[in-house]
Amino acid sequence: MARGTITVSSKKQFELIDITDQIAAALREAGVDGDGVCQLYNPHTTAGLTINEGADPAVKEDIIGALSRMVPFDHPYRHQEGNSPAHLMTTLTGSALTVFLQQGRLQLGTWQRIFFAEFDGPRQRKVLWQA
Amino acid sequence: MARGTITVSSKKQFELIDITDQIAAALREAGVDGDGVCQLYNPHTTAGLTINEGADPAVKEDIIGALSRMVPFDHPYRHQEGNSPAHLMTTLTGSALTVFLQQGRLQLGTWQRIFFAEFDGPRQRKVLWQA
Amino acid sequence: MARGTITVSSKKQFELIDITDQIAAALREAGVDGDGVCQLYNPHTTAGLTINEGADPAVKEDIIGALSRMVPFDHPYRHQEGNSPAHLMTTLTGSALTVFLQQGRLQLGTWQRIFFAEFDGPRQRKVLWQA
Repeated sequence: MARGTITVSSKKQFELIDITDQIAAALREAGVDGDGVCQLYNPHTTAGLTINEGADPAVKEDIIGALSRMVPFDHPYRHQEGNSPAHLMTTLTGSALTVFLQQGRLQLGTWQRIFFAEFDGPRQRKVLWQA
Repeated sequence: MARGTITVSSKKQFELIDITDQIAAALREAGVDGDGVCQLYNPHTTAGLTINEGADPAVKEDIIGALSRMVPFDHPYRHQEGNSPAHLMTTLTGSALTVFLQQGRLQLGTWQRIFFAEFDGPRQRKVLWQA
Repeated sequence: MARGTITVSSKKQFELIDITDQIAAALREAGVDGDGVCQLYNPHTTAGLTINEGADPAVKEDIIGALSRMVPFDHPYRHQEGNSPAHLMTTLTGSALTVFLQQGRLQLGTWQRIFFAEFDGPRQRKVLWQA
């Protein structure tokens, strides 16, 4: 079993960042070449992981835009840091992902890319992987 | 390790389709008989996977109905295909599932069934599994 | 491979219950001491599993409060038990979680805790684990 950590620098408060190439490179550098799964884990509480379309960059903008409209910002939140919507978005998106591997390569669908979902940036973040 | 693919034909734009029996049959045909987990993976970007109640068919209708009301359809989406709500629903539902196995059998709760969540049908779809 | 079940008693209709210490204790008692992953599974259809901030108890209240506002309660639900919002919340939160293990210890982020998400309590519940 191989494992490691990649780093992500978000630039905006809300942002989907494509980390597919970083994960693929980490697997390659670690010599992962078998079948099985790659597990990804986000250790932050105001950011998630998601798989969605990467071909048209408008999709990630639409997802972030619609999610920000769906989650209430005017709720009487008690958490003093003011980022409770980001915590809810994290729970809605999820902190862990499983992707299949074939001979060490990520077996994604035609349009799929792996995204780090930033909900409280800009920040320095990290993602753990294991394969 | 065994792996395979099942196919799903959706009939409506939004639809939860019970794929439990198909997965169980695929595991049986592949001779899976141990403990561990069955990993499921949806390679599409406008469809997800979810586990929920299968006994009363009204539950899956309620989930789809309420989800369609919650996700904004009148947002100024930029993605030209017009299916951005489906992309958001995919991120909310998730693309991968893990179910426990006991002697090769899916260890679901009393009321649980595994559903393919179609958000942009009707289409021919597939689900990858690994156990 | 080790596996087991922990029990959870919810006190309210909607409630995030920190189960991190229970899972850690179960792993310890089972002698789990390697690297890899701990898989958690919720066999209920009106409750989920999520990872989020545990330091400030206001965060879990905010998540439940905002989620309850986001999910429609006035939809013409057909399921007669009246708990369809709980079924939708389960699909939004997810039924399974994967956490990384390092020498048998849960490798959570600084602020992360594992929560049982009750959406139809109070009830006696259980969570399956495998490592």
